[in-house]
Amino acid sequence: MQGKMRAIVKHHRGFGAELQMVDIPSIKEDEVLIKVKATSICGTDVHIYTWDEWSQSRVHPPYVFGHEFAGEVVEIGNKVTNVKIGDHVSAETHIVCGDCLQCLRGQYHICKNTKIIGVDTQGCFAEYVALPATNLWKNPSDMPFSVASIQEPMGNAVHTVLAGEVAGRTVAVIGCGPIGLMAVAVAKACGASQVLAFDVNEYRLELAKKMGATTVVHSMNEDPVAVAQSLTNGDGVDVVCEMSGHPIAMNQGFEMVTNGGRVSILSLPVRPVSVDVTNHIVFKGIEVQGITGRKMYETWQQVSSLLHAKQVSVEELITHELPLEEFEKGFELMIEGKCGKVVLIP
Amino acid sequence: MQGKMRAIVKHHRGFGAELQMVDIPSIKEDEVLIKVKATSICGTDVHIYTWDEWSQSRVHPPYVFGHEFAGEVVEIGNKVTNVKIGDHVSAETHIVCGDCLQCLRGQYHICKNTKIIGVDTQGCFAEYVALPATNLWKNPSDMPFSVASIQEPMGNAVHTVLAGEVAGRTVAVIGCGPIGLMAVAVAKACGASQVLAFDVNEYRLELAKKMGATTVVHSMNEDPVAVAQSLTNGDGVDVVCEMSGHPIAMNQGFEMVTNGGRVSILSLPVRPVSVDVTNHIVFKGIEVQGITGRKMYETWQQVSSLLHAKQVSVEELITHELPLEEFEKGFELMIEGKCGKVVLIP
Amino acid sequence: MQGKMRAIVKHHRGFGAELQMVDIPSIKEDEVLIKVKATSICGTDVHIYTWDEWSQSRVHPPYVFGHEFAGEVVEIGNKVTNVKIGDHVSAETHIVCGDCLQCLRGQYHICKNTKIIGVDTQGCFAEYVALPATNLWKNPSDMPFSVASIQEPMGNAVHTVLAGEVAGRTVAVIGCGPIGLMAVAVAKACGASQVLAFDVNEYRLELAKKMGATTVVHSMNEDPVAVAQSLTNGDGVDVVCEMSGHPIAMNQGFEMVTNGGRVSILSLPVRPVSVDVTNHIVFKGIEVQGITGRKMYETWQQVSSLLHAKQVSVEELITHELPLEEFEKGFELMIEGKCGKVVLIP
Amino acid sequence: MQGKMRAIVKHHRGFGAELQMVDIPSIKEDEVLIKVKATSICGTDVHIYTWDEWSQSRVHPPYVFGHEFAGEVVEIGNKVTNVKIGDHVSAETHIVCGDCLQCLRGQYHICKNTKIIGVDTQGCFAEYVALPATNLWKNPSDMPFSVASIQEPMGNAVHTVLAGEVAGRTVAVIGCGPIGLMAVAVAKACGASQVLAFDVNEYRLELAKKMGATTVVHSMNEDPVAVAQSLTNGDGVDVVCEMSGHPIAMNQGFEMVTNGGRVSILSLPVRPVSVDVTNHIVFKGIEVQGITGRKMYETWQQVSSLLHAKQVSVEELITHELPLEEFEKGFELMIEGKCGKVVLIP
Repeated sequence: MQGKMRAIVKHHRGFGAELQMVDIPSIKEDEVLIKVKATSICGTDVHIYTWDEWSQSRVHPPYVFGHEFAGEVVEIGNKVTNVKIGDHVSAETHIVCGDCLQCLRGQYHICKNTKIIGVDTQGCFAEYVALPATNLWKNPSDMPFSVASIQEPMGNAVHTVLAGEVAGRTVAVIGCGPIGLMAVAVAKACGASQVLAFDVNEYRLELAKKMGATTVVHSMNEDPVAVAQSLTNGDGVDVVCEMSGHPIAMNQGFEMVTNGGRVSILSLPVRPVSVDVTNHIVFKGIEVQGITGRKMYETWQQVSSLLHAKQVSVEELITHELPLEEFEKGFELMIEGKCGKVVLIP
Repeated sequence: MQGKMRAIVKHHRGFGAELQMVDIPSIKEDEVLIKVKATSICGTDVHIYTWDEWSQSRVHPPYVFGHEFAGEVVEIGNKVTNVKIGDHVSAETHIVCGDCLQCLRGQYHICKNTKIIGVDTQGCFAEYVALPATNLWKNPSDMPFSVASIQEPMGNAVHTVLAGEVAGRTVAVIGCGPIGLMAVAVAKACGASQVLAFDVNEYRLELAKKMGATTVVHSMNEDPVAVAQSLTNGDGVDVVCEMSGHPIAMNQGFEMVTNGGRVSILSLPVRPVSVDVTNHIVFKGIEVQGITGRKMYETWQQVSSLLHAKQVSVEELITHELPLEEFEKGFELMIEGKCGKVVLIP
Repeated sequence: MQGKMRAIVKHHRGFGAELQMVDIPSIKEDEVLIKVKATSICGTDVHIYTWDEWSQSRVHPPYVFGHEFAGEVVEIGNKVTNVKIGDHVSAETHIVCGDCLQCLRGQYHICKNTKIIGVDTQGCFAEYVALPATNLWKNPSDMPFSVASIQEPMGNAVHTVLAGEVAGRTVAVIGCGPIGLMAVAVAKACGASQVLAFDVNEYRLELAKKMGATTVVHSMNEDPVAVAQSLTNGDGVDVVCEMSGHPIAMNQGFEMVTNGGRVSILSLPVRPVSVDVTNHIVFKGIEVQGITGRKMYETWQQVSSLLHAKQVSVEELITHELPLEEFEKGFELMIEGKCGKVVLIP
Repeated sequence: MQGKMRAIVKHHRGFGAELQMVDIPSIKEDEVLIKVKATSICGTDVHIYTWDEWSQSRVHPPYVFGHEFAGEVVEIGNKVTNVKIGDHVSAETHIVCGDCLQCLRGQYHICKNTKIIGVDTQGCFAEYVALPATNLWKNPSDMPFSVASIQEPMGNAVHTVLAGEVAGRTVAVIGCGPIGLMAVAVAKACGASQVLAFDVNEYRLELAKKMGATTVVHSMNEDPVAVAQSLTNGDGVDVVCEMSGHPIAMNQGFEMVTNGGRVSILSLPVRPVSVDVTNHIVFKGIEVQGITGRKMYETWQQVSSLLHAKQVSVEELITHELPLEEFEKGFELMIEGKCGKVVLIP
């Protein structure tokens, strides 16, 4: 397909981005062109937009960013067999090498040579996006595009929550950004007996309640560890999903987890964290897991199934749908934390 | 405590049982006397009542049978520290040795020297029961006794369903007796994307729907394997909970499970079953688990948590509450299969 | 590369095979041509050679059979990046689809659309073989070709033995064909406290001793279950690797495994097996696993590491090395069971 | 049994200890009196001997310390059924409550109410020790007492190494004190393809070689991370057993582990450790485990089996056997690090 399309371009090495007309991308024989129907804003996009330290060292403007989306296949390369024109699809964001130790073990999500769509390659904040066919995930045709567009971050939540047992267990979610909020819903849907949500943002604590938290705690107003212990007969929680990235909150997580419990960390603290290894990890006999990406493609199957079965509903989490043109408003909402998931419609 | 109490006594080596006045049991220093508030009828009790082959070889009338109950502690031996008078309790049915290879591995539920309450010892179809303190499980004081009384069989269901992953998976429950019905509810509560329930009893298929089955199948009227495949895009189900004990149904389970899936067997077929090991186990790369009893006491914690959190509700499953005196009616209902759980109130 | 090569051709629908001159295969852009340096005979090849029922229904003569080998890359397609000319390689025998439910879960070894090299495609009993690059496994350049050629069946042994814990456990290997013999060595190398080997072939029981079995049992002369129990203080063994395919031996495995133990079945009984599900699976609370193929490519990494580290030595197992021309002698040895592994040198 | 016995008494709140004559302890009905045949010095004993900060806050002189031993049962309480007079035994050091959340889950080693023998109770640096029968582990009668006496610390090594897969994996042991040295032997015995041992003590690096390390590294003379990467094709090791307690070494462990690897920490750093959570835990997708004590009693079974099967030999590790009277010499050796395991013979 030839022609021009609207796209949000990270146009310079500084704050912000621009809506521009750019060429519709052409595809290679193992690639697919997708008409983007809905695309959602990730925290990573906000980093790129606000041009933080990480972005400065990683991305190369000008380029189209964005990586969470749902759309419809409009053109396929001549070697593509797994999707066909008209299919509804989303995409795994990690483009992996297939040949390193980790890939050979089936641990594609921690491939040592990963490229990230919209970070290292052209992204999906646009009318069309070209992607390798092997990265596509087929969506049921009756799944709304806005819902389908947030499967990628929901995959992070599912990967974190389901990295161990939750049924009949008490789960703490520390940090109620969109992924934390989805983690709350996933934990509840998968049989958690209590889901405690911690944050310092009232708006998001309200959303946490709607997503199924049995207790929400403003970590400035109440002592998170004390609350966790009082709700668990002094034992502490069984599972901590750390999604805040704050060293104090992370340490509260280590403190509130029960002996033998699990702390699954998805967050990315900007600096090293001082951890009481002896008392909080060794004597407690706990397990600490680093979680990144989504298992390819087991996590996608779980996400798709949980949504399709209505075990998890994300409608209330999608607080804003805006036309692509209003991306600046979307980014402002994200920066202020006054939103759940913000979806842009090209 | 001295005196007499009402009890259902398996009085002779034949069909039936009798309500009799017997001595209130006395307790040893590590035992506890419990006033029984609710006691439910298990399939095992029906075997004893109807005096089947297994009963004839195992139990020794006259004695008080029954093992599922909830009650209140009324007397404790002088070495007992884990419960106190007034506590609400139920009990694990397996009295284990603590010293065999399995007990030393913490696998108490498969202790080689297990004695079963109400089978090998005096049971709980009575006003009072005396039990070792270490077998007691404390119930929340606000849990209704009838609900608390069925935690033991619900433990079988939880042990079976949660013997592997269910979140975002398709689960088939084959055989919808009371434990199968609880398995349906547990699978649904723990994130199963589909729960298929199979039986040949319309009454129980109706109950299966109420417990959360997404599809119910009368195995005589429809081809169970075909239904399972049509609902899973031809893949078959991820998990089979086999609770029927019928060789044909069990083999349907092996057929309907997807490659790499799990078949957890709680049922006790009366005769050896002919299994296509090559095609149904090896080439499919599946896992087959034998499930017995409840993990002591991890399963009890899960059961208690799931009930307390209202993740699982069993009220609709308790179709009949009868005074202890009407036990014959209760057994008839069980024999006919025209009931969910039947609870007797002493 | 053009020209003719020697190859063992399954030339007709009947017993035997023929050495013929055939075209050296040409390769596609994602394929690789390998000069075969050593190729070993598998039980599957014997089935094809003797033209049993399974072969009659599955393979389509005339074609070159054989699938276990090691060789050197001599030509690569223009899209191939993972190997280069001169590399020493072996190959995974399963050519998988990459797109079914199992492949998407990373369970390639149970792909629903598997094709098997040398069964469904041209094989390696020849001077050259052409294969998809993605199926190749790179060998250390100092690994002898004959050793490297048996990594594929050793992968079956590793997959079976390491499908659960073996360190400090008692392991029974039932059936001491070449894979069973490698299972003995793997179990010993991975910390098994006892390795009991069972067979009815004296020659192979002798080999089992050399491979590290702590006890060898001729199942006709001694009662396998009694031996297992007497060596485990009456408890039974922790792990059974069933590699015989005989219903009686398989049931002895179920009988000799301890409560909570593991029975991993790699064998392919020709008929359904009658199993005492109640007493041997459910009450014992055991796990039964169907094992097929090799985890791609985790098992290959384990095999390669165990060999390279000399944790497992297979030199004694390779009892015969013959020139390709003497394949008939090789097949006779296999049919008689008077051999370990038979390697053909083209 | 009445009378006096020789014992090493922590007699005052300061450096050192004294050999004294004290009463032979009397036993309760569920206790056992053991004649100590060999008792070994643990790092914890050195802390108590040198009267470090931890000891000052925890132990209450005067009392008999020591907790690693092997001996013979000479008297049993009248409720004891699991051992009899003449049995050879060692003991699990953790006396647990049996009633907390963790104990009810079978995780006795992280019981919240643990008492430690020789720390919180009278210990075994004496001719006799009285212990609860349930803490005893029966030794084979042909196991030398000195070997049997070090099963408890070997249990720490086994618990750490076998907390995940090691067969065919590369394992780094950081810190080659006696437990680290045993970890080296266990990893090797359980199929590790490489065992890298790190320390700054030449004496112990020599011992590490004898125990089976494939590479020993003096961490001051070589860059541990660089060595680990060069030996693993740049991938890093699969498993790190952190037994040094030094923050720099621990962080080297996080750096040298491969993506998706495992870091099992048994050591007790005296201060919080600064950890690069983002790059070393999350992006790498690793698992960090806190390890304490021994699984009761699964670890004991593994230890006993590995020793009895000669899969692990500890003879070379026991560098010194001294009469009880020469305990001061033993402690000096431990303080200087010029020893493997030091065993005292009462």
